[in-house]
Amino acid sequence: MTPFSLDHSRLSTQPFPNSEKRYLTGERFPEVRVPVRAIRLSPTVEAFSGVTRTLPNPDLLVPDTSGPYTDPAVQIDLERGLPHARPWLVRDERTETTPRFSALADLDGPVPYPNVQAPRRARAGQGITQMQAARRGEITPEMEFVALRENLRQEMSADLLEQHPGESFGAALPRVYTPEFVRDEVARGRAVIPANINHPELEPTIIGRNFRVKINANLGTSIVTSSIEEEVEKMVWAARWGADTVMDLSTGKHIHQTREWIVRNSPVPIGTVPIYQALEKVGGKAEELTWEVYRDTLIEQAEQGVDYFTIHAGVRLSHVPLTARRRTGIVSRGGSILAKWCLAHHQENFLYTHFRDICEIMAAYDITFSLGDGLRPGSIQDANDAAQFAELDTLGELTRVAWECGVQTMIEGPGHVPMQLIRENMTRQLDACAEAPFYTLGPLTTDIAPGYDHITSAIGAAQIAWYGTAMLCYVTPKEHLGLPDKQDVRDGVMTYRIAAHAADLAKGYAGAQLRDNALSKARFEFRWQDQFNLSLDPERARAMHDETLPADAAKTAHFCSMCGPHFCSMKLSHDIRAADVLAGMEEKAREFREKGGEIYVDG
Amino acid sequence: MTPFSLDHSRLSTQPFPNSEKRYLTGERFPEVRVPVRAIRLSPTVEAFSGVTRTLPNPDLLVPDTSGPYTDPAVQIDLERGLPHARPWLVRDERTETTPRFSALADLDGPVPYPNVQAPRRARAGQGITQMQAARRGEITPEMEFVALRENLRQEMSADLLEQHPGESFGAALPRVYTPEFVRDEVARGRAVIPANINHPELEPTIIGRNFRVKINANLGTSIVTSSIEEEVEKMVWAARWGADTVMDLSTGKHIHQTREWIVRNSPVPIGTVPIYQALEKVGGKAEELTWEVYRDTLIEQAEQGVDYFTIHAGVRLSHVPLTARRRTGIVSRGGSILAKWCLAHHQENFLYTHFRDICEIMAAYDITFSLGDGLRPGSIQDANDAAQFAELDTLGELTRVAWECGVQTMIEGPGHVPMQLIRENMTRQLDACAEAPFYTLGPLTTDIAPGYDHITSAIGAAQIAWYGTAMLCYVTPKEHLGLPDKQDVRDGVMTYRIAAHAADLAKGYAGAQLRDNALSKARFEFRWQDQFNLSLDPERARAMHDETLPADAAKTAHFCSMCGPHFCSMKLSHDIRAADVLAGMEEKAREFREKGGEIYVDG
Repeated sequence: MTPFSLDHSRLSTQPFPNSEKRYLTGERFPEVRVPVRAIRLSPTVEAFSGVTRTLPNPDLLVPDTSGPYTDPAVQIDLERGLPHARPWLVRDERTETTPRFSALADLDGPVPYPNVQAPRRARAGQGITQMQAARRGEITPEMEFVALRENLRQEMSADLLEQHPGESFGAALPRVYTPEFVRDEVARGRAVIPANINHPELEPTIIGRNFRVKINANLGTSIVTSSIEEEVEKMVWAARWGADTVMDLSTGKHIHQTREWIVRNSPVPIGTVPIYQALEKVGGKAEELTWEVYRDTLIEQAEQGVDYFTIHAGVRLSHVPLTARRRTGIVSRGGSILAKWCLAHHQENFLYTHFRDICEIMAAYDITFSLGDGLRPGSIQDANDAAQFAELDTLGELTRVAWECGVQTMIEGPGHVPMQLIRENMTRQLDACAEAPFYTLGPLTTDIAPGYDHITSAIGAAQIAWYGTAMLCYVTPKEHLGLPDKQDVRDGVMTYRIAAHAADLAKGYAGAQLRDNALSKARFEFRWQDQFNLSLDPERARAMHDETLPADAAKTAHFCSMCGPHFCSMKLSHDIRAADVLAGMEEKAREFREKGGEIYVDG
Repeated sequence: MTPFSLDHSRLSTQPFPNSEKRYLTGERFPEVRVPVRAIRLSPTVEAFSGVTRTLPNPDLLVPDTSGPYTDPAVQIDLERGLPHARPWLVRDERTETTPRFSALADLDGPVPYPNVQAPRRARAGQGITQMQAARRGEITPEMEFVALRENLRQEMSADLLEQHPGESFGAALPRVYTPEFVRDEVARGRAVIPANINHPELEPTIIGRNFRVKINANLGTSIVTSSIEEEVEKMVWAARWGADTVMDLSTGKHIHQTREWIVRNSPVPIGTVPIYQALEKVGGKAEELTWEVYRDTLIEQAEQGVDYFTIHAGVRLSHVPLTARRRTGIVSRGGSILAKWCLAHHQENFLYTHFRDICEIMAAYDITFSLGDGLRPGSIQDANDAAQFAELDTLGELTRVAWECGVQTMIEGPGHVPMQLIRENMTRQLDACAEAPFYTLGPLTTDIAPGYDHITSAIGAAQIAWYGTAMLCYVTPKEHLGLPDKQDVRDGVMTYRIAAHAADLAKGYAGAQLRDNALSKARFEFRWQDQFNLSLDPERARAMHDETLPADAAKTAHFCSMCGPHFCSMKLSHDIRAADVLAGMEEKAREFREKGGEIYVDG
């Protein structure tokens, strides 16, 4: 019996409109079931010279991060946790169950999780990480899972496959994603699959510059506001709208329980910043942090199933003075905690000195590093300064150590950067960190719009992702002002899906333009319902159309309230196409071109 | 007596918080009074080693497009119109008043404007445009006006003047804006000052790649929705939030009156698309349009004071077949109307054949061309295609004709363009149109997010403005779905101010970073009220902070609800700075550098 139960009715579990949850099944591993969302479309009706034809439009498959919540066949029970998407983990003989190191932590506070499982870890001498497997030439179920997820197999009309060539800035995107390609990218450290062996509920995803750009949503309690219930609800909500990973940045009470509820119910990788909990354990006094407290916190969270850890091991003692003349000092919470510790003890950062010990823990659970950028710029003025790049070089050094230990690694990046300085961040990171995936917060391209920082940062995020960033950490409208509520989370996720998708198009990710083409086709054919259903946020698109034209008839009308019926350019375009004169016109145009008409240009 | 009066109470006239309307006075022309907004700031309080110092922060001057509405000394009366910001116009002997050509038009519908003035036009043989004056070497009051407006003269602490070097892609931004510089840019056609001599209420602005990036807000009635009252209110609202120009795209009833109410009360340049009204005059049948109907519409609107006209003279008969295989055909309303006319008559576009006649009318009132891109792409798939670039080349040809006639000219641009194809739009436009200012709609960088197209397009807008676009036409969240309401207008304007400012920073516009620096300084010093007041939308920033920490005390607290007091990185940064150890640390760091410590990187 639990002293507390979450209100399931607040969860958003209804499927997306006109969509169906399907699963792609692994060929190598039949237990691999990759969720996708199929959007059903209405047919195209063509009327041309008096003849009407009805042409079916095939379902469009789109990535689905929402987990079992949108599967009507699954009964959700937050107190049991999600069904296991990775049933093979418990059969892995290279791992063993252990007594729960963090057993006591479960008792702190009023809301212990009712269904705690015994944690697993690697047996001594076993290299169980995805990276270690990849280097041995093994293809894991997770690798097949993510390959299927990247490479939605579908039959689309050739017409919809048209796509502009990308400009990839040196990335090497394949036409088709195979498990072999995934293995190769993971082996060389250019991609990571964050997947703790204690998170069997996870539907794995891959993060790397040669894959679809991913986005992360931050949430979490602070001492001032929010509850476990709200954070679980926000996690489900963020995944629903398209967060590929979620970070639990809780800093208030009951950090351990909040995390347990979140991980057990999360279909997406969960990241944390363990120093936050470690700091709570020493009463909020940075100078009282010790390696032992931190180490125990890592193990505690590893056993819970956290998939990646932000670790600020690159904030070295000697970097701190480089921040002294900054406009906004150190703006990373973790960075400032460690800087304070370094100064108080006049010693090197203990995360740097204990880095190999940390790697050993991470490897035993296959937790991925997200090497934190504790010295990222917090204002336009501080962008690309000596402190930031000194830390980046250290992160490169640490990346090589992590790789030696077989630990998957990504690198966090800024922050606040004006557009003309964004590119340098990417090129330096690729160079310093040997193409380990870059994971940036925005960057915000101006400081002057608090309340709209999802937008100031989407401008920078789309660019840095185009240049090669593998995952974008969202920024919500409430950044700098307060903790995000559900609406802020939705706005942040939507904004970042836009930025990531814009980058996929620009890089030339295979098939990225399919959805654009399908939506624009629906738009041009006045299939309004299809247009809504194909959009990133069908509810919002439909609601906005309803504001001026709520009637059902308007959803097939050949105009909208923007221009009214006389002025609809798309309607006029149809008239123009239908005109028999067109064939004659093309003939004339050809003649004109052949005679060297000067108005035509190539391309 | 009027049959109708606007409800003044719905107008937003209150000044911005802690701000004061001031006027900069011309040196050459004492009648020139340029509005600016001064934001008053609280002092910085420094506590260091036990000593407290209070340092005043000077007022920050920011551009002010809101007009007399935010001046408490002005009594607003919509039925009389705004006071004249350009009193010199009525004394200009090169112009004369004429009987109102469009007298009859005033009577159509129920809401004639009560205070119609006799229109002015150039006397025969007089070259009155800003371009003609500039070529003669004359500096006009408008030139001094815009120079002062670009070059806010203020004394800021040297500290706040720090700015990253820009990357301007060949633009030539000066350190200081002078009337002479303005004259030179206008003479060579690289900038325009849209300022019809029948719009004396106008506070002029300049549009060119070597000036601050400007933004335009579209509004207007359609047959389906909206009223004159709402549109006047939206114009005031758009200008308040920062629209540098407003386009009245009305297509419903009473187009003439709607425009009269708007122009008489607008402090910003007003643009229109005259073909919309011409089409209404022929009952919505494109094929019934004639040069005579169109010409009379131009004169009618010229007399009312419209500052720039979108004219789709580049949609040539021979371009139309190039659109036949497009995903979304022709998506410009004007473009599709003219394409339909061309096909119906199998004749060249009458705007193209009568282009010199149009120039003659424009020159007589100093109306600026906005050469419309009737064939802009309406989907990612159609970006940068043959139709689009064929039209662009024609626009370049027409630019040279307009310049021969002394008419100021800018060029409209797309539309929907994936990021990797944006740059080509700018380089081709600069080349084809000899650096005439580019004025783009977005571009949207993906088609898949209706409901969020302010964001899909801000990503593209910031980039194209960085590359050289002079003015950005906003896109609201409701694009593709319906006419924008007031909230959509505000969201659109704010989003585009962000995009424009991000571009100003990236280009290296002199002083662009001042506001970022001032806001970040306020943020770092926990001057919350200053942070709100310095932001683009003070109301929204304050409201979001109030959601979690409404108490007055929170507005000076050294933390916020995002992290709570233990985790505030900025507070920790202050602790770090305050620590006496810092001086010693810098010493150590210097030693380390001198010994060749490898962790440091240059720059």
